[in-house]
Amino acid sequence: MSILVVGSVALDSVKTPFGNAPNALGGSGTYFSVSASFFTKVRLVAVVGSDFPPEHIKLLEKRKIDISGLKKVAGKTFRWKGEYGFDLNNAKTLDTQLNVFAQFKPEIPPNYADSEYVFLANIDPELQLDVLKQVKRPRLVACDTMNFWISSKKAALKKTLKHVDILVINEAEVRQLADETNLVKAARCIRSWGPKSLVVKRGEYGVLLFGGGQVFGAPAYPLEKIFDPTGAGDTFAGGFMGYLAKCGSLADADVRRAIIMGSVMASFDVEDFSLNRLVRLKQGEISRRFKEFKTLTHFDVI
Amino acid sequence: MSILVVGSVALDSVKTPFGNAPNALGGSGTYFSVSASFFTKVRLVAVVGSDFPPEHIKLLEKRKIDISGLKKVAGKTFRWKGEYGFDLNNAKTLDTQLNVFAQFKPEIPPNYADSEYVFLANIDPELQLDVLKQVKRPRLVACDTMNFWISSKKAALKKTLKHVDILVINEAEVRQLADETNLVKAARCIRSWGPKSLVVKRGEYGVLLFGGGQVFGAPAYPLEKIFDPTGAGDTFAGGFMGYLAKCGSLADADVRRAIIMGSVMASFDVEDFSLNRLVRLKQGEISRRFKEFKTLTHFDVI
Repeated sequence: MSILVVGSVALDSVKTPFGNAPNALGGSGTYFSVSASFFTKVRLVAVVGSDFPPEHIKLLEKRKIDISGLKKVAGKTFRWKGEYGFDLNNAKTLDTQLNVFAQFKPEIPPNYADSEYVFLANIDPELQLDVLKQVKRPRLVACDTMNFWISSKKAALKKTLKHVDILVINEAEVRQLADETNLVKAARCIRSWGPKSLVVKRGEYGVLLFGGGQVFGAPAYPLEKIFDPTGAGDTFAGGFMGYLAKCGSLADADVRRAIIMGSVMASFDVEDFSLNRLVRLKQGEISRRFKEFKTLTHFDVI
Repeated sequence: MSILVVGSVALDSVKTPFGNAPNALGGSGTYFSVSASFFTKVRLVAVVGSDFPPEHIKLLEKRKIDISGLKKVAGKTFRWKGEYGFDLNNAKTLDTQLNVFAQFKPEIPPNYADSEYVFLANIDPELQLDVLKQVKRPRLVACDTMNFWISSKKAALKKTLKHVDILVINEAEVRQLADETNLVKAARCIRSWGPKSLVVKRGEYGVLLFGGGQVFGAPAYPLEKIFDPTGAGDTFAGGFMGYLAKCGSLADADVRRAIIMGSVMASFDVEDFSLNRLVRLKQGEISRRFKEFKTLTHFDVI
């Protein structure tokens, strides 16, 4: 089943203690699409400027991502410049140039309107709601957001959340959104606003899912070499949604496997700069690491 | 099989956003002993002052902890005063009075020397080594330490670690001790100094075990009501060692269950001030929460 993703396609300049990647392919829509493309068909809606390198378009095409909704307009592509210290947990933003992204008004191509799975990456919540008005009632809507929208457009965000099935956000944003430090209470509060499930991304500590009647916790995969955490959250969301769309079920056991699959994909993303690791990733590596997650977390009750 | 624990018995004054407990029973040796006593016989070596309330002695006796190694000397008991904010992750120490603990020189009673399991709670690494000289070769030696000893007595600590099988410390201390931010690398470094296994305590994010050929990760149990995190680490260690001593095996699968059992005990500890929750804990609650941990983390590979 097809996934529609609306988000950013960007040129990132990232510096970490292990090197740097200037003007590399980035953006929430990009990471999500490439990650999800390992599992199902992906339709991308985003905007780039006239400076967007053709090799990046080729990369998306090679992953068989439908980019008929990727608009190219006059002007410069969205650019983000950031730096990570040794702990690799928090990016320090050095520069943000919205460029053509500042005027982004997602237009969903008519042939995308029947998408059964929709992922609203981190954009203005008013635009997220606008996207939902352009699609026929999809089977599953998930969305991301960030501290900026929580503090500046909370009312609009809460309006959007009424129509969202799964909210996928960072732990600090969960606390900020609910204005509650206890995660269990914060999750209950947010879920009372609409989302049936809440996926809490905790970076190197893994993921917590509050959904239906279940709570599920998965650690992140302990990696010896982490080069660049940029895009890990969107790559997680891509693996999570991609797996759900592929298996076509929303049963608890499948949602758990989807959480692990998202974690698997994110664990690959951070192993290299930009999308370098994802584009050379093989299906066999994915299933191998999925099994390694099982080995990492398994114990028997006796 | 019996566990010998050497650590502190203290009077804690703790304030959290949910209340406060002045002059309550605390100390690493206390939390460890009470937690481990649910699984096996515990022998406690520590020191208290003449002001130590008899009801606390009764509490330890009620848990059938052997306190013939708990010395009562003239002077005041070790006192710690701390405060937690809403995030409950980090205690702010307001006051530390070592009192009789300043002169603590652990003397292991002759009838304790055959203890098969030894836990060296967080005390001066020179004293930890001294304890090991007083026991016949035990089956398993685990120890804890803290940032203070890592920065002030690293050489002595490394000397002690040569004789330690399992080091159980906080994540930040792992990084500080190895002078390495990457946990996988830090674990390898520390294990090259002696400990066959490293248990990394990550507070509300759970535990990572690096041991033998395995890495095992367990999230913490998401709790709605956390009143006081004091003693959670020592309570974890008590459940971990207690379970290992009870089952008498060091097989990978048993060590994994021991990690979960430690997490189970810690999850109870934080539900009330001081040892209040642990003293009213029932065996049935322990096995029920153990199963809940399984439900929290389980997924199937298909």
